[in-house]
Amino acid sequence: MTNRGLYVGRFQPFHIGHLKAIQHILKEVDELVVVVGSAQYSHDIENPFTAGERLEMIRRALDEAEVDASRLWIIPVPDMHLPMMWVSAVEGYTPRFNVVYSNEPLTHRLFMEASYKVKGIPFFKRHLYSSTHVREKMLDGEKWKTLVPIAVACFIIDIDGVDRLRELSAK
Amino acid sequence: MTNRGLYVGRFQPFHIGHLKAIQHILKEVDELVVVVGSAQYSHDIENPFTAGERLEMIRRALDEAEVDASRLWIIPVPDMHLPMMWVSAVEGYTPRFNVVYSNEPLTHRLFMEASYKVKGIPFFKRHLYSSTHVREKMLDGEKWKTLVPIAVACFIIDIDGVDRLRELSAK
Amino acid sequence: MTNRGLYVGRFQPFHIGHLKAIQHILKEVDELVVVVGSAQYSHDIENPFTAGERLEMIRRALDEAEVDASRLWIIPVPDMHLPMMWVSAVEGYTPRFNVVYSNEPLTHRLFMEASYKVKGIPFFKRHLYSSTHVREKMLDGEKWKTLVPIAVACFIIDIDGVDRLRELSAK
Amino acid sequence: MTNRGLYVGRFQPFHIGHLKAIQHILKEVDELVVVVGSAQYSHDIENPFTAGERLEMIRRALDEAEVDASRLWIIPVPDMHLPMMWVSAVEGYTPRFNVVYSNEPLTHRLFMEASYKVKGIPFFKRHLYSSTHVREKMLDGEKWKTLVPIAVACFIIDIDGVDRLRELSAK
Amino acid sequence: MTNRGLYVGRFQPFHIGHLKAIQHILKEVDELVVVVGSAQYSHDIENPFTAGERLEMIRRALDEAEVDASRLWIIPVPDMHLPMMWVSAVEGYTPRFNVVYSNEPLTHRLFMEASYKVKGIPFFKRHLYSSTHVREKMLDGEKWKTLVPIAVACFIIDIDGVDRLRELSAK
Amino acid sequence: MTNRGLYVGRFQPFHIGHLKAIQHILKEVDELVVVVGSAQYSHDIENPFTAGERLEMIRRALDEAEVDASRLWIIPVPDMHLPMMWVSAVEGYTPRFNVVYSNEPLTHRLFMEASYKVKGIPFFKRHLYSSTHVREKMLDGEKWKTLVPIAVACFIIDIDGVDRLRELSAK
Repeated sequence: MTNRGLYVGRFQPFHIGHLKAIQHILKEVDELVVVVGSAQYSHDIENPFTAGERLEMIRRALDEAEVDASRLWIIPVPDMHLPMMWVSAVEGYTPRFNVVYSNEPLTHRLFMEASYKVKGIPFFKRHLYSSTHVREKMLDGEKWKTLVPIAVACFIIDIDGVDRLRELSAK
Repeated sequence: MTNRGLYVGRFQPFHIGHLKAIQHILKEVDELVVVVGSAQYSHDIENPFTAGERLEMIRRALDEAEVDASRLWIIPVPDMHLPMMWVSAVEGYTPRFNVVYSNEPLTHRLFMEASYKVKGIPFFKRHLYSSTHVREKMLDGEKWKTLVPIAVACFIIDIDGVDRLRELSAK
Repeated sequence: MTNRGLYVGRFQPFHIGHLKAIQHILKEVDELVVVVGSAQYSHDIENPFTAGERLEMIRRALDEAEVDASRLWIIPVPDMHLPMMWVSAVEGYTPRFNVVYSNEPLTHRLFMEASYKVKGIPFFKRHLYSSTHVREKMLDGEKWKTLVPIAVACFIIDIDGVDRLRELSAK
Repeated sequence: MTNRGLYVGRFQPFHIGHLKAIQHILKEVDELVVVVGSAQYSHDIENPFTAGERLEMIRRALDEAEVDASRLWIIPVPDMHLPMMWVSAVEGYTPRFNVVYSNEPLTHRLFMEASYKVKGIPFFKRHLYSSTHVREKMLDGEKWKTLVPIAVACFIIDIDGVDRLRELSAK
Repeated sequence: MTNRGLYVGRFQPFHIGHLKAIQHILKEVDELVVVVGSAQYSHDIENPFTAGERLEMIRRALDEAEVDASRLWIIPVPDMHLPMMWVSAVEGYTPRFNVVYSNEPLTHRLFMEASYKVKGIPFFKRHLYSSTHVREKMLDGEKWKTLVPIAVACFIIDIDGVDRLRELSAK
Repeated sequence: MTNRGLYVGRFQPFHIGHLKAIQHILKEVDELVVVVGSAQYSHDIENPFTAGERLEMIRRALDEAEVDASRLWIIPVPDMHLPMMWVSAVEGYTPRFNVVYSNEPLTHRLFMEASYKVKGIPFFKRHLYSSTHVREKMLDGEKWKTLVPIAVACFIIDIDGVDRLRELSAK
């Protein structure tokens, strides 16, 4: 049977830490389901990008890094804010998986209670590579482009993403 | 700029007509976004399969038919039953597209009102290749396997899909 | 205190029977709250027009009929499909009212159980003036324009409403 | 460990067949969780009674039949129309249970797919004792009181339930 | 064609700054659509008033200021917390408009991305005339009545609005 | 007529103050409806327990305290975050009640506006007996078991509740 992993993130935006995580997990599983969570949100300070934009970022980044696309499923899943149903919502949107990779406490706990094997992911320079950090850099007018794959930087520039984030944070 | 098409279906299940449609559209566009609509539904007579199962059907069928996966985006989108917001919901879940392929009247009308170019798709033996027809054959215990790509037939057998459909239709 | 009535309809579309009903009720109350129900729906065969379009129809028709706008409140209210909360939903979206006019059984019953005074409305040539009848005429290519106020007919023509309805009903 | 069963119904209204089913199941389990499904609905022809009214019917009927209340949990659960999450919704609203009793195909299938033991319930004169049948009798002005426990008949009369149902079905 | 503007606010409560804004915009457009946003909320510290109460405040204030009602549309629109669909939700609830007036960053950005012309509104003594400021004065037992049109002050007193706000903020 | 009270809480978890409140109210009414609010939430720091777990806690605690179960109705009600509809939501999920017990400002205000008699509940050592305080003790590894009925302490230990809460609060 296919050994298939699950990895959940919001990817606002997709950064080099996410890429390293995917590359790490792909050493352990045959296929990986990447869930783009909170898929229905966009245009707020913590979720500036639409699901479609995040899918495009991820795919361009994986392509650039020459990750084998045939081993990946990239699937948007809307958040329902009902933790007791989150595992079954994910199960409904995804092909069957047998191991969950997560450092996020709620995801960890919920899949554990549902009897899944849950594994942590080694952090890669977490002080640098976190989406919150990238958004802060964007807002402060500091250098952020080296924190994300080049293809992601280009895409964000293309869609005028930094301006969007800054306008959304204006008062 | 990438010439990118959109094609919406429920794919309950994915059949040979769907495959022909995708192959047809791919002759006209660089990339195609396949929206798996009504993504949140499953386990009812008209929507027996989960979004995850439908994603898996589609991907296996495209693989079998040697369709170039790098030109396709397969994306589940939940239905909100709010036609006036349907176009923007789809826009939010997908990468930007510039032409819509549809024979479905509501999709056609909504995207047309939103100023998209909308094109029909030549039907391929529609009396045979429709999801309703496939589900009826399954329910009636008649031959349905030749109506879907072989990979889809195998997958439905694997997940015991016909039994599910029959049980759901029991009284 | 202001004697204020409530009148709920979907107005798909607003026809001469609706106009007569409003004129009738205005003889009995100081002000009338016209609730445009199922406000979130549009673009389906039974609800072809958006709330905004229906507001515009109603206002143009009342203007044409020289109804005193200062005695009317025209308010869209989305349907929540939760009858037990419908009265309080309406109460939340509207200024206070003390009498409800309705021939619709559910509205009648719910407001009665909530201790409102509920009155029927004399039908005006109901076999002619019903929204269902108007939509059927539109679909069948028969004469429908005399069934609605002239201003409504013009508006529907302006927004290409009949074509929309026909396309939505196509198979 | 407590051997705890689950029994799901809408109980529109609670009739003698429901009572017999509960008495039957209580012979096999220590405790029984009775889920009052579609809890948010009321005031429509198929769901005339609120969850609160249904809870009261059930409790009065069980009391009258001298069923040991300490072995029962009577719990309203709203329907979300998302079969893929129904099992976890029920799990979230109820104490843990280990066996499901149901003759309803969807409930049967969903709990089976979630690896629960699912058992049928022997029907008790089903042609007489079905909620649909009771509502039809009420609508037709025929005898319905002998189809429900006496305490339920009294309660429905108290709340003027038959008039409600008839008004809702008026045209 | 009618030159029609859009102006979105929550109006919790409607104050003199809002009135000045409407009077300002009416110099530039033929008609103005005033959207009463977050229409479904009430009875919390930031949203004390129902949509119906806010509609009544606005209408009384405009009447008092002798604004020509025939040039205004005052329309409640519920918030769906889905920015990617907000523009189409507003479009669905309103008559067609061609210019948007807003100082609110999210509204500005979303309508701009949807290709609308978006204009700012000159602030009128913003440190005094803001809804937050009015609610704070109410909570602190300070003078607030001069911050709103007299008709609004009277209405809030009529419905016992300050007591409501204070009770809601109690601990 | 039965003198029936209503008491709303989230019971995250059920503590000795809740028990004292129920015992106090039962001296004044014939029957008490205990609404387990925010029923759909669980697995977050402020709502660690599911509705089903809370129902079980409450029932075990009342049993241990020898409270007469036949005078109580324990009913989960999901929160809809729509204060204007909260009273009718509660009315729909519960048997009819005529007096509301609450120290919570919103509940107090809403039921008062709906013309219910609303009474406060004498606090019992509130600095000790509050759910927030219990959860803080759990998180800080301090003694919490004496703050809840013994049966609740045992149940929380059984379901590994403290570990769940701690994991959910991890960063």
